[in-house]
Amino acid sequence: MDHIDAYWRAANYLSVGQIYLLDNPLLAEPLRPEHIKPRLLGHWGTTPGLNFCFAHLNRVIKERDQDMIYIAGPGHGGPAAVAHAWLEGSYSERYPDVSQDVEGMRRLFRQFSFPGGIPSHVAPETPGSIHEGGELGYALAHAHGAAFDNPDLVVACVIGDGEAETGPLAASWHSNKFMDRRRDGVVLPILHLNGYKIANPTVLARIPEQDLLKLMEGYGYLPHVVGPDHQEMAGALDAAFDQMAAYKSGEADRLPMIILRTPKGWTGPREVDGKPVEGTWRAHQVPLAKVRDNPAHLAMLEEWMRSYRPEELFDGGGRPNQDILGMVPRGTRRMSANPHANGGELMEPLRLPDFRRHAIEVKSPAAQTTEPTRVLGEFLRDVIAANPRTFRLMGPDETASNRLQAVFETTDRAWDAEVLPTDENLGPGGRVMEVLSEHLCQGWLEGYLLTGRHGLFNCYEAFIHIVDAMFNQHAKWLESSQKISWRRPVASLTYLLSSHVWRQDHNGFSHQDPGFLDVVANKKASVVRVYLPPDANTLLSVGDHCLRSRDYVNVIVAGKQPVLDLFTMDEAIAHNTRGLGILPWASTDEGVEPDVVLACAGDVPTMETLAAAALIREHLPELRVRVINVVDLMRLQPATEHPHGMPDAEFDTLFTTDRPIVFNFHGYPSLIHQLTYRRHGHGNLHVRGYKEEGTTTTPFDMAMMNDIDRYHLVMDVIDRVPGLGSKAAHLRQRMSDARLHARAYTREYGEDPVEISSWTWPVANSR
Amino acid sequence: MDHIDAYWRAANYLSVGQIYLLDNPLLAEPLRPEHIKPRLLGHWGTTPGLNFCFAHLNRVIKERDQDMIYIAGPGHGGPAAVAHAWLEGSYSERYPDVSQDVEGMRRLFRQFSFPGGIPSHVAPETPGSIHEGGELGYALAHAHGAAFDNPDLVVACVIGDGEAETGPLAASWHSNKFMDRRRDGVVLPILHLNGYKIANPTVLARIPEQDLLKLMEGYGYLPHVVGPDHQEMAGALDAAFDQMAAYKSGEADRLPMIILRTPKGWTGPREVDGKPVEGTWRAHQVPLAKVRDNPAHLAMLEEWMRSYRPEELFDGGGRPNQDILGMVPRGTRRMSANPHANGGELMEPLRLPDFRRHAIEVKSPAAQTTEPTRVLGEFLRDVIAANPRTFRLMGPDETASNRLQAVFETTDRAWDAEVLPTDENLGPGGRVMEVLSEHLCQGWLEGYLLTGRHGLFNCYEAFIHIVDAMFNQHAKWLESSQKISWRRPVASLTYLLSSHVWRQDHNGFSHQDPGFLDVVANKKASVVRVYLPPDANTLLSVGDHCLRSRDYVNVIVAGKQPVLDLFTMDEAIAHNTRGLGILPWASTDEGVEPDVVLACAGDVPTMETLAAAALIREHLPELRVRVINVVDLMRLQPATEHPHGMPDAEFDTLFTTDRPIVFNFHGYPSLIHQLTYRRHGHGNLHVRGYKEEGTTTTPFDMAMMNDIDRYHLVMDVIDRVPGLGSKAAHLRQRMSDARLHARAYTREYGEDPVEISSWTWPVANSR
Repeated sequence: MDHIDAYWRAANYLSVGQIYLLDNPLLAEPLRPEHIKPRLLGHWGTTPGLNFCFAHLNRVIKERDQDMIYIAGPGHGGPAAVAHAWLEGSYSERYPDVSQDVEGMRRLFRQFSFPGGIPSHVAPETPGSIHEGGELGYALAHAHGAAFDNPDLVVACVIGDGEAETGPLAASWHSNKFMDRRRDGVVLPILHLNGYKIANPTVLARIPEQDLLKLMEGYGYLPHVVGPDHQEMAGALDAAFDQMAAYKSGEADRLPMIILRTPKGWTGPREVDGKPVEGTWRAHQVPLAKVRDNPAHLAMLEEWMRSYRPEELFDGGGRPNQDILGMVPRGTRRMSANPHANGGELMEPLRLPDFRRHAIEVKSPAAQTTEPTRVLGEFLRDVIAANPRTFRLMGPDETASNRLQAVFETTDRAWDAEVLPTDENLGPGGRVMEVLSEHLCQGWLEGYLLTGRHGLFNCYEAFIHIVDAMFNQHAKWLESSQKISWRRPVASLTYLLSSHVWRQDHNGFSHQDPGFLDVVANKKASVVRVYLPPDANTLLSVGDHCLRSRDYVNVIVAGKQPVLDLFTMDEAIAHNTRGLGILPWASTDEGVEPDVVLACAGDVPTMETLAAAALIREHLPELRVRVINVVDLMRLQPATEHPHGMPDAEFDTLFTTDRPIVFNFHGYPSLIHQLTYRRHGHGNLHVRGYKEEGTTTTPFDMAMMNDIDRYHLVMDVIDRVPGLGSKAAHLRQRMSDARLHARAYTREYGEDPVEISSWTWPVANSR
Repeated sequence: MDHIDAYWRAANYLSVGQIYLLDNPLLAEPLRPEHIKPRLLGHWGTTPGLNFCFAHLNRVIKERDQDMIYIAGPGHGGPAAVAHAWLEGSYSERYPDVSQDVEGMRRLFRQFSFPGGIPSHVAPETPGSIHEGGELGYALAHAHGAAFDNPDLVVACVIGDGEAETGPLAASWHSNKFMDRRRDGVVLPILHLNGYKIANPTVLARIPEQDLLKLMEGYGYLPHVVGPDHQEMAGALDAAFDQMAAYKSGEADRLPMIILRTPKGWTGPREVDGKPVEGTWRAHQVPLAKVRDNPAHLAMLEEWMRSYRPEELFDGGGRPNQDILGMVPRGTRRMSANPHANGGELMEPLRLPDFRRHAIEVKSPAAQTTEPTRVLGEFLRDVIAANPRTFRLMGPDETASNRLQAVFETTDRAWDAEVLPTDENLGPGGRVMEVLSEHLCQGWLEGYLLTGRHGLFNCYEAFIHIVDAMFNQHAKWLESSQKISWRRPVASLTYLLSSHVWRQDHNGFSHQDPGFLDVVANKKASVVRVYLPPDANTLLSVGDHCLRSRDYVNVIVAGKQPVLDLFTMDEAIAHNTRGLGILPWASTDEGVEPDVVLACAGDVPTMETLAAAALIREHLPELRVRVINVVDLMRLQPATEHPHGMPDAEFDTLFTTDRPIVFNFHGYPSLIHQLTYRRHGHGNLHVRGYKEEGTTTTPFDMAMMNDIDRYHLVMDVIDRVPGLGSKAAHLRQRMSDARLHARAYTREYGEDPVEISSWTWPVANSR
């Protein structure tokens, strides 16, 4: 126990040093103001508790030769994770200039929360971390994602009592119903109740202990309550690891968790300026302020740091003494050097079956229809079969609704709770993770990817906004990771958004929102990709491409309802490779300058655009129309803005610089303007898209409510091409009449005049 | 009990009728295909359970003369809420054409999920509803928001077992720690376990009942388990209402909740096409498909509907019989007519103290600094004091961090759990709601506003993305409500986003995200307003304005760190009224056409713009610069796009049509382009803003990393104004050098060369 305490004191000493010191790291001389950082930024409150857990877990790792990683939910405890990595030597391995000696310690202290240094939170820069200390709520979901398909791994997950108040964390406790004892590792939740969040006590710290125990038992755990005491913690961990072993061997059904109660800011100043600090919310950040200017505070800081007895912990050269180094596990058993926490080191590429085998035969374009996601489901089925331990499909109870049900031919939904005779496709070994929580789907997948595996998240388009903030955090993690040389690339996070805005006619206005694309487009071009395949073959090819990619967030928007087949497989691959292109069979410009460009992105807008082009061809055959379909949305950006961006010359050739462009878009129109406003032809660009009109109605009525329908597109063209004369004016009137007729028909009969997707090419006379 | 059963059967009959029938509502003749809707859209699975609860709660209302509203968490149960409102007569009061007779019943059936009719989910169109049946997770938070400050109200809240898997719902159970028995009403959660979500069993339905009971007891409730039986439900409700009365009177500490287990699709077809339906996930939507074309299904539908014995429930004219009408409470005791569910009927305007009393004295612009949110906090303190029962301030543990702490001079944080001697500002009667869950803050506030009260949500800017999806749902609710004549306007939902992107230098990259504004800008112009007050006085005036507004979502972005005071109170009011304007004292164009326009929105970008203007004035005095500050972002849009939009002529006069505009923006630059791309001068517009660069560093370094700093703005001007000559080239070099110097200084000393906000006007030589 003495060695554990020494290790803990060393980690605490290094944590305080990081928050306060520019120099004099070993206190070789009395502290002077110039040793202190001018801006004191960091969070002490949670840090000693995190260090306490690290120290005790290291004992278990060594005793049991346990493969383990550590997730620090209280990301504010950055100093702890960094101190631990430095003590274990892995910090110096990753950053040789921060050596394990007095000069390295000086650099370690100085760089923390310092311009040009490292963030104050646990971050991609921190060895051993897969969990950013930013937004709270996702620690336990990440932990379970890391444990999936790692049967020998233990993921220790410290949950702060602030984080425990969040919704995603409250739901994450139920992740234990989705684990398989044979196939998966084990998560050990450590609920660290220091009593306070930023400025308030916390709910779980202030409810009766009987309630807390019942809550944890109700969640399905065996709770151990531990006070601020080494013996208690060691005893609880021994019991917990025994229980975990019994669970793994099938002798027990339940897994343990630990409730660790400590003072906030434990071992820090008791009282500052007459107010209690240790054990209160005042210990949250920097307990002693203005240390440079306040000699009393400076003296207290020195007293505080010396209370850890650094002279017993480090030799004169700043190297940790042998008792402490003796606590450190070897090699990759060190939690700060475990390769699971740098998943790219372990990742193997997926074994991808040939997606071409699922190709839809297309003899002529736009002559038949297919449900794209149903076809993709068959490909995903084969992906799962070929990668039985490294690929998972996540979805909030929408996998079948999104018509990916072919996957159930090869696997189940993961489910470790009760199964009834009428149930289908449920089992502990299932590769499909369905829970009605987008937060859990996202958190599990992030944890799974960051530990070197692969997956895909399928979701209703509107409700993916639930994880906007999680997407932001993950994108930022990737942005930062790309700049860190020792972080190996991981598989991309790929979203398949189906049941999209244009086919939520049945569920109504609350289910209609294509705005996730706007959230995505705000992130760095180096990490985001957006694809809108218009048919089944393009979706197959895009899906394959996304599963091969690394370190991106891919967003695929694709419908589950029948859409026109436009491309043979070879054409689809070529079209996707270009990212956008002219549809010659739908165009009448015959390779010369067109009178008007009809552009489109998204399956329903593309079908309406094709129908509009057909109407123009029939009724205004002299008008030269060019039809362009965009699959890879980022192609629209200038090459200077996005790696997929198209050079201006190419854009100008395709879209012209002086002809009207009517762009029919899947999402909010402003995104197309945002991507193209620097283009020469932008002044001629008119974008149709979702304009926040909708209700429970029919698919074609949805299109009409937002003016993306074929009739309105024809009217848009007539309004924008000059000098078309009376024939066009007459056509415009007919289009307007056709809209009125369609709306009236729908309101009378409750269905569209014709199925939106069954209008094949060429379209018959609209009257 | 017979009457309850009759009421229930009537509601079930009406529910099935809505899903299936176009005509023949009373089955006066055998069902024929033409009586059936061509598209069958709706959700049966949850509906009979919701009807069961309605029926039983009505008995309690009548017996106890209880003021009660009903929140249907399973929004898929739209048919139930509509059926109930029609039985109670309130549907016909709101929609006289849907009368309480056979013709009204025909219309009731036909309109459901039908083009031009009503949505399939519980919606603003549904009398008695404050909770949209869209995205799941927020029922229990809405319920608690409705109960705040309504001491005599009971909010019955049915939670589906699908919804119960979501994070926000899992956290919402703890809302009971934030209630005051004297001041607040009571929420009665009814966890309705029918066992399935869309296609899967649910966690809470499949864990051992002992676990479920412990979970609910751990959350602090007294659970009652009820099976599908009238006697059990009646007994449990009697016990629960007695327990609620004991709690209200102080005799008991805990509140009850009910676990209702029923089959999914209860009373519907047992088996269809050889597969079990009732009691399985197959009952989720429409149990009998293709009824028009399948005579066997048509016969089953008729048998199903006749199983409710409609001839006993309705007279020949379609009016409910006396037993059923006898179950209906009177007037506003009817849950479908309770004014709490149409909160605008009850809302009284806030008593707003004069915000001018808190004005900062500004003798000359940009000569001193103030922390804007600290001043707003004093105003909010007075608002709370003047409105002790109708205003609440929500925040995820950030109220003090956002420097609104003056509110604690007049009130506490609401807290009904344990209080320790060292705690401050905690008490059951507190008006400040702090929980580390943005979901709960948002959900509580929505429930509070929709029942006719007022409030404000203060949050870190980056983490407000956590509730993007909730914002979307609430904005859609408001968009729809504005079109419903009987829905009275409610107070706007106002966000105060502080601790914003430019002052998250200390917390680092994960805390830096200004993208909520982009999410907001996608919603209908009729409901969204965005304000970026640059100083304390403009913030005060904006805050007052927002608290007076109705039916909007207002977003205010304002810093907590010191910023330059720019406006006297009178000037601030005038500036806000215009929404944007020239700062004459910072401009050198002297009323004639400028050479360049420097525009800005947001506090830090404004300070940098002012400093840039000062540098230009000093070093290039011959250059005519116009400085424009934008407070009301929607002013930038064309008048045709937003009610606050500015006519083109006015925009052209301010921004010119041919001079370079350098716009320094708080958020992502694309939003300014999105708002202005139709403007004549858009081709000359160059926008600076957050470009996803940041780390833990200093405030001025954050500005430099994103090129919004004063030096870079001067360089931008020099690059864009033609013919400036060698003096300008020299200045450009000096600016570039100044940036290098500042970055190096920061990295050496860990702080900015000068405090970002202390550079007063005019700025000294930058070297």
